[in-house]
Amino acid sequence: MFFHVKELQFEAKPERPDPVFAKKLQELIGGQYGEMTVAMQYMFQGWATRGNEKYRDLLLDIGTEEIGHVEMLATMVARLMDDAPVNQQEEAAKDPVVGAIMGGMNPQHAIVSGLGARPTDSVGNPWMGTYITASGNLLADFRSNLNAESQGRLQAARLYEMTDDKGIKDLLSVLIARDAYHQNQWAAAIAELEEKEGLLVPSTFPREKERTDISYTLYNLSAGEESSTGRWAQGPALDGQGEYKYVSNPKPEGDKPMLKPAPPNLHNTLPMD
Amino acid sequence: MFFHVKELQFEAKPERPDPVFAKKLQELIGGQYGEMTVAMQYMFQGWATRGNEKYRDLLLDIGTEEIGHVEMLATMVARLMDDAPVNQQEEAAKDPVVGAIMGGMNPQHAIVSGLGARPTDSVGNPWMGTYITASGNLLADFRSNLNAESQGRLQAARLYEMTDDKGIKDLLSVLIARDAYHQNQWAAAIAELEEKEGLLVPSTFPREKERTDISYTLYNLSAGEESSTGRWAQGPALDGQGEYKYVSNPKPEGDKPMLKPAPPNLHNTLPMD
Amino acid sequence: MFFHVKELQFEAKPERPDPVFAKKLQELIGGQYGEMTVAMQYMFQGWATRGNEKYRDLLLDIGTEEIGHVEMLATMVARLMDDAPVNQQEEAAKDPVVGAIMGGMNPQHAIVSGLGARPTDSVGNPWMGTYITASGNLLADFRSNLNAESQGRLQAARLYEMTDDKGIKDLLSVLIARDAYHQNQWAAAIAELEEKEGLLVPSTFPREKERTDISYTLYNLSAGEESSTGRWAQGPALDGQGEYKYVSNPKPEGDKPMLKPAPPNLHNTLPMD
Amino acid sequence: MFFHVKELQFEAKPERPDPVFAKKLQELIGGQYGEMTVAMQYMFQGWATRGNEKYRDLLLDIGTEEIGHVEMLATMVARLMDDAPVNQQEEAAKDPVVGAIMGGMNPQHAIVSGLGARPTDSVGNPWMGTYITASGNLLADFRSNLNAESQGRLQAARLYEMTDDKGIKDLLSVLIARDAYHQNQWAAAIAELEEKEGLLVPSTFPREKERTDISYTLYNLSAGEESSTGRWAQGPALDGQGEYKYVSNPKPEGDKPMLKPAPPNLHNTLPMD
Amino acid sequence: MFFHVKELQFEAKPERPDPVFAKKLQELIGGQYGEMTVAMQYMFQGWATRGNEKYRDLLLDIGTEEIGHVEMLATMVARLMDDAPVNQQEEAAKDPVVGAIMGGMNPQHAIVSGLGARPTDSVGNPWMGTYITASGNLLADFRSNLNAESQGRLQAARLYEMTDDKGIKDLLSVLIARDAYHQNQWAAAIAELEEKEGLLVPSTFPREKERTDISYTLYNLSAGEESSTGRWAQGPALDGQGEYKYVSNPKPEGDKPMLKPAPPNLHNTLPMD
Amino acid sequence: MFFHVKELQFEAKPERPDPVFAKKLQELIGGQYGEMTVAMQYMFQGWATRGNEKYRDLLLDIGTEEIGHVEMLATMVARLMDDAPVNQQEEAAKDPVVGAIMGGMNPQHAIVSGLGARPTDSVGNPWMGTYITASGNLLADFRSNLNAESQGRLQAARLYEMTDDKGIKDLLSVLIARDAYHQNQWAAAIAELEEKEGLLVPSTFPREKERTDISYTLYNLSAGEESSTGRWAQGPALDGQGEYKYVSNPKPEGDKPMLKPAPPNLHNTLPMD
Repeated sequence: MFFHVKELQFEAKPERPDPVFAKKLQELIGGQYGEMTVAMQYMFQGWATRGNEKYRDLLLDIGTEEIGHVEMLATMVARLMDDAPVNQQEEAAKDPVVGAIMGGMNPQHAIVSGLGARPTDSVGNPWMGTYITASGNLLADFRSNLNAESQGRLQAARLYEMTDDKGIKDLLSVLIARDAYHQNQWAAAIAELEEKEGLLVPSTFPREKERTDISYTLYNLSAGEESSTGRWAQGPALDGQGEYKYVSNPKPEGDKPMLKPAPPNLHNTLPMD
Repeated sequence: MFFHVKELQFEAKPERPDPVFAKKLQELIGGQYGEMTVAMQYMFQGWATRGNEKYRDLLLDIGTEEIGHVEMLATMVARLMDDAPVNQQEEAAKDPVVGAIMGGMNPQHAIVSGLGARPTDSVGNPWMGTYITASGNLLADFRSNLNAESQGRLQAARLYEMTDDKGIKDLLSVLIARDAYHQNQWAAAIAELEEKEGLLVPSTFPREKERTDISYTLYNLSAGEESSTGRWAQGPALDGQGEYKYVSNPKPEGDKPMLKPAPPNLHNTLPMD
Repeated sequence: MFFHVKELQFEAKPERPDPVFAKKLQELIGGQYGEMTVAMQYMFQGWATRGNEKYRDLLLDIGTEEIGHVEMLATMVARLMDDAPVNQQEEAAKDPVVGAIMGGMNPQHAIVSGLGARPTDSVGNPWMGTYITASGNLLADFRSNLNAESQGRLQAARLYEMTDDKGIKDLLSVLIARDAYHQNQWAAAIAELEEKEGLLVPSTFPREKERTDISYTLYNLSAGEESSTGRWAQGPALDGQGEYKYVSNPKPEGDKPMLKPAPPNLHNTLPMD
Repeated sequence: MFFHVKELQFEAKPERPDPVFAKKLQELIGGQYGEMTVAMQYMFQGWATRGNEKYRDLLLDIGTEEIGHVEMLATMVARLMDDAPVNQQEEAAKDPVVGAIMGGMNPQHAIVSGLGARPTDSVGNPWMGTYITASGNLLADFRSNLNAESQGRLQAARLYEMTDDKGIKDLLSVLIARDAYHQNQWAAAIAELEEKEGLLVPSTFPREKERTDISYTLYNLSAGEESSTGRWAQGPALDGQGEYKYVSNPKPEGDKPMLKPAPPNLHNTLPMD
Repeated sequence: MFFHVKELQFEAKPERPDPVFAKKLQELIGGQYGEMTVAMQYMFQGWATRGNEKYRDLLLDIGTEEIGHVEMLATMVARLMDDAPVNQQEEAAKDPVVGAIMGGMNPQHAIVSGLGARPTDSVGNPWMGTYITASGNLLADFRSNLNAESQGRLQAARLYEMTDDKGIKDLLSVLIARDAYHQNQWAAAIAELEEKEGLLVPSTFPREKERTDISYTLYNLSAGEESSTGRWAQGPALDGQGEYKYVSNPKPEGDKPMLKPAPPNLHNTLPMD
Repeated sequence: MFFHVKELQFEAKPERPDPVFAKKLQELIGGQYGEMTVAMQYMFQGWATRGNEKYRDLLLDIGTEEIGHVEMLATMVARLMDDAPVNQQEEAAKDPVVGAIMGGMNPQHAIVSGLGARPTDSVGNPWMGTYITASGNLLADFRSNLNAESQGRLQAARLYEMTDDKGIKDLLSVLIARDAYHQNQWAAAIAELEEKEGLLVPSTFPREKERTDISYTLYNLSAGEESSTGRWAQGPALDGQGEYKYVSNPKPEGDKPMLKPAPPNLHNTLPMD
C-alpha cells in the first residue's frame, strides 16, 4: 500500500523555457533505462521475492523512491514548456529562432499532452513492459539493476552536459548522485550474494549437467586474435572452478542439418532434391 | 564481413516430436534474453567500439557465436515439430492426448511458419530492437552483458528441467555451458575495467557536479527497516569514496509543484482555483 | 514523493494453486485497462494539472491507490503458482490433469519470472505507455477515466464468474467495489465540469470556426435506417446549442482527388495517364 | 460489405506546401485518437453487437464515415508535400529556411512513403490494434467513444491553431464539427442506456457480491485534503444507491505478504532468512 | 467516401461452436498478412497514387473489398463462440473436454471482448501499422501485394485443413478463391509495369550511379556451392542488362574500421590501446 | 555456424560529419525493409527449408551477406557523428547552423548510444520480429524477398539523392547494386518455381475446394470503372486456368448477420430489440 506527499523529494524548476530539452529529458522518464523502468522493475522484483525480507524491503524502498523520480521529471518537463511559443505560427514563420524551437520539440507535447510529460522516450516510443526484468533469481536481477543504474547515470550525465540551465542541472545532479548510490548499493548486494552463491547464475544448477568441457572456452570466431590477450582467455576463471581456454580455430561439432518434409496439409514447398 | 558453414556448431536433434516444448523453447530464440538479443547486442556494441580493439574483437567473437546459437535453436524447433499431428483435426477430436498437444502448441508454428521457428518469444511477442543495449560505455555495457548471460542461463536451466528428451537436454547443456563461460568472461572484462575506472559509470563525470551529500544514502521509503541491515546501509561504500548512510524517516526537500496555466490556444482546462 | 507500507490494502490469498487463472488475472495487471494503466494514467494526469488543486489531489489520491492494486494482484498471481506442478514433466506426461494445467498456464510464469507476476496482459503482450491518456484537458481526461473504470469493472466481473476460489473472489469483490466507486467519482467530477463548461470538449474553441452546418448531423452511411430512431437523430442536441439532423442519403461535397506527380528524385512511379 | 465513391466527403486542399505540418497532421490519422482508431473501434464494436440493431447501425454509420476521414487526411498529407523541397540537398545547405523545412519533416515521408501519408502518429509510432476498445458492453464502449471524440476534437482544435493555411483550416473545421456531433451523439446514446441500466458498468453484476462497504469511499492517499471538497466525497452518490464517504487516514486491511519459496527446479534464490 | 450495406458479401456461419478455432482464425483478421493488413495497405497505396487512375481505382476496389473480408471474419469469430462454455468453471473442472476447450481459447475473447473478434493475430499480438507497405512506387508495391496474397492464401489453406466444420470451410473457400484472383490480378499488374519499366525497382535510377561491376554477382558466403547451380548464378540476367557471376571465395574490399574516440562530454569509454 | 572477418566487405567512410543524415540512414539499418530485416528473413527462411538444398544454400549465402551490410551501415552511422557538435550547447545557442544540426539529429544517438548506430528506423522505432516473413512455402517467401529488395533499393536510391557526400554515395552505390542483383536473383528463383508449380501459392491446394466461380472476378467496389481496362479484368488469366471477369455492380450474397446474445455471466449488454 502506497502514500503520497505533495512536495517533491527534490526541487524541479528550470530557469527558462526549453521545449527542445523537454523532448530530450523524456529519455529519463519513459526510455529503456528511464525512471519508469527502475520504478516498475524494483517493485515487480520486490513483490515476487520469496523470503529474504531484507532484499524485498530494499527493492521496495528504492522502487518507491523511483516513482518520485518520475514525478520530479514530469514536473520539470511540464515547466520547460511554460511560456514557450508552442503554437504561435505567425511568429514562428517570421523568427527563425522561434521556428527552430518549435521544429525541435516533440509535437505530441503540444498536440496530445497539452504541455505535460509523456510516458515515452526522447524519440516518442511508448514505455514498454519489456523494459523490465524480474526473474525470481536475485543475483541475476541485481545484475540487471546495476546495469540499469549504470546506463541511467550515463544518460543523465550526457544530458547534464547538454544544457547550461542551472535548474535543470540541479535536478540532474540529484539524479546522478542517486544513480551513484544505487550503483554502490546494488554492487554491495551483488557482493553479498556472490559470496554465498559464487559467480554463476543460477548457482543451484548442477555443473555436471552442463557440457563442462566447453564452460571455460573462448572461441575465436572473429578473425584476428586481439581478444586472446584478455584475462578471460587464460588462467584461472573468476568463478574459481576452471581454467580459461582459447580456441583460435574453432570447428563445428554438429552435422549439416537436413530437415524432413512438412506434412502435405501445411502446403509447404515439397523437396525437389 | 561474415561467413557461414553449414554444419551446426553443436548438434540439435530431439529424440521425438514435442510441439509444446517447441513453443517454450522460442523464449531462447526471440525472448528478451534470447540468443537474437545477445547476438545483436554484442555486434552493435562491437561495431560502435572506438579504439579498444581487444574489446571490439571480443564482442565480435561472441556476437558471431550467438548467431550460431540462434541457428541451432531454430533447427531444434523445426525438428520438434516433425511428425507431430499439427493439423489432423479428426484424430485430435477423438484422442485427448493429440488434442492437448495441438492445444498447447503455438498456432503460428502451423499457420504462419509452416513448422519453422519464429522470431518471437514463448508467448508469441516479436523480438524487438529495444531488447538490446549499446551505449558506447563499455563498463556499462559489459554489466548489461553479464546480466543477459545470467538471465539466459537461468532460463535455459529452467527449460532443461522441463523435459526428459535427451536430445533437447544435450543442446541445452551446451547453451548452459556457454552461458557459464560468458558470465565468467564478462565478469573478467568488468573486473579489468573497474580496476582502471573504479565502480561508478561513467567514471569520467566529475563527482563535484553531483549532489554528493546524497550519493551514499539509503532512504527508507518502504516502512520497516529490514533493508538497514545490509552492507549498503553503513560502512565504507564499495567505490571507496564515501560512507553509506541510512535515513529512516526521509522528508521532501522540494516544494509542492504549482504549474502555470497553459496558453489558451492549447485548450487545456483553465485554472478554477 | 511516495511512501510504502508493507501490509496490503486488502488481503490477496487464494485457497489453492491455479496457474491457469494466474494467466487470466494478468489482464487486470498489465492489460489495456489493468491497474498499471489507471495508476500511470492518474499520476501523469495529476502531475500535469495546471491549477485546479482539487482535481490534482483527487488524481494523485486515486493514482496512488492503484499502485497498491497492482501490488495486491501481483501478490495473488505469485500465490496462485505456489505448489503448482509447473515443471515436473514426468508427472505431467502421466497425468492429463497435470498436463492440462501446465499447458494452460503462461510459459513465461515459469521460464522468465520464476512464478512472479509479469508486466503483461493475459495473452502476454507487454504493458505499453500508449495505454494511458493525459491531455491537459480535464473533462476529456475524466471521460477517459470513466471509461477505464467501466472496462476495468467489466473485466473484473467476468473474471469473478470464472472461478470458485473464495480467496480470489474476495480480492475481486474489493476491486469491483473500488471500480464502482471510481465510476461514481469520475461521473461526479464530469458532472461538475460539464456544468461549468458544457458538453463539448474543448469548450474554449469558438464554435464559429467549425463547420456548424454539419455539427448536428447523422450521416446514414450504413444502409438501413435503424439508427435514425435514436435520440441522437432528431430533437434538441444534448449540448443545448443545436438540433439533431438525419441525412439519409449523404453525398460527397469534395472532388475526386488528383495528386501531382512526385519529383523525379524520389523515384515514384510516373503518371502514365 | 462496403462501397467507395471517388469523391471526398469534404474537400482536402492546402493553399501551399508544408511538410512540417504534414508530420503533425499524422497524429489525426494514425495516433492513439486518430481516425484509424475511431474507424476500427466503431466497426469492431458494431460487428460484435448482439441484438440492439439501432446501436449496431449507428456504429456502422459512423465507423464507415471515419474511414472517409482517414481518406481526406491522407489526401491532405500527400498534398502538403507537393512541390516541397524534400530532397534537394544543395539548396537546403545554402538556404536555412529550406534546411529547416527538411529538418522538421518526417524523414519517412520522403524515404519510405514517397510523399504519401503513413499509418503512424506525429512522431512516427505505428498505429496499433491496442488503440481500440470493443468489450461487448455498449455502455462501457460508448464511454470509450465519447472519450475518443473528446480527445480527437481537442487535438484537431490544437492543430487548427497551429496553422494559418486556409485549406487546412477548412478541413479541420469539418473534422472539429463532426467530432462535436459525435460527442453529442455518444452522449445521447449514453443517456439512453444509463436511463435503463443506471450508472455502473456492468449493471448486471449483483451488488451484493462486491465489498459494498467500500463502494462509495474516497481514500485520502495523497497527503492534503483538497480532494475532500468535491462532490464525490460526500452526499448521495450519482448512482443513487449509496452515500459518498471520505477516509482521511486510510489503513491497510491486509497482511504483509510472505511468499513461499519456489520449487528448486526453477532455480530462484532460496530464502536466507 | 465509403458506404456500407448490412448484408455480408458472403455467408459466415459455422455449424457449431469452436472457440479454439476462433483463436486461430484471428490470424486472418489481425495477423501480419490478415485482412486488416491488405485493406489498409491497398487503401493507403490508392490514396497516395499520383496519376495512374487505373491503378488507383483498382487499389480502392480491392481495398474496399478487404474491409468486407474483415467483417465476415469478425462475424465468424463471434459466432464460433456462441453457446460455448466460456466461463462455466464448475463444468470445466469436471469435464476434461470442456476444460480443454476453455484452456485452448484466447482468454481475451472472454475477458476483454465479450465474445467479439479482436484486432490481433492468433497469439494475441495487436495489429500494427508496420504491417503495411505503401511506397509511392507501384511496381514495388504490387510485389508487396502479390506476396501478401500469397501468404494470405497459404494461411487460409492451412486453416481450411484444420477444421471439418462446413460453415467455416465455406467461408475459407471464398477467401481462398479471392486470394487466388488477387494473385492473378497483381501478377497481371506487375507484368504490365515490368513491360514498361523493366525488372528493376526503381527503374528511373541511372544504372551508372551504382557499382555495376557487382550488380550481377552471387557471393558464396555460406560454405558449399549448391546455390551455384541455380539460374541466378550464370547466364544472362533476367533484367536483360547483364550476365550473372558466381564468386566462390569472396574477399573483403574495405578496411578494418577504426573509429575515432567520442568527445569527452559523452562519457564513452576512452581508447586504452 | 558463423565466422567474421574484421575488414568490411566494402568501404564505409563519409567525407564529413553529418548527424542529420545519420538519422536518415537508420532506415536502411533497422527499418521495415532495412538490412536487419533481410538478414534475419533470409536466415530464418534458410534454417526452416526442408530439402531443397539449393535454395537453402542461396538463402544462407545472402542472409550472411546482409549481416555484413548492417555492419557497413553501422560503421557509416558511427563515422557520420565523428567531430559533430552533438552536445556543445553554448555554440549551438549562438550559431543557428550548429543549432539546426543538433535539432535535426536523433537525440538517442547522443543520449543513448554515444554516437553508435541504433537498432531502429529513421524515426526511432525499434526493429521488430514482425518485419520478417518465413512461411515454409518458398514461392511465397521469394515473393516477399523480391518485394523487400525492391523497397530496399528504392529507399537507398532516395537516400542517394539526398546527399552529395561522396563517401556516403559510394556505400549507397554498392547497396543499390546489390539490391539490383538480389532483385534479379529472386526473380530468377521465382521463375524457376513458377515453371514447376504455376502462379498460385500454394500450388498444392486442390482448386475444387475453393469457390472457383469467383476465383477470376474483379468486383467494382469503388465507383468508376477505370480498373476495368486492365489486363486483370478480361481475357485469360495469368495462371492459365481461367478467364478474368469484371462485375461492375456487385451484390452481397450473404445475410445481414444477427448475433445471439452472450451468456449472462459475461455481462455484455443484453438485447433490447
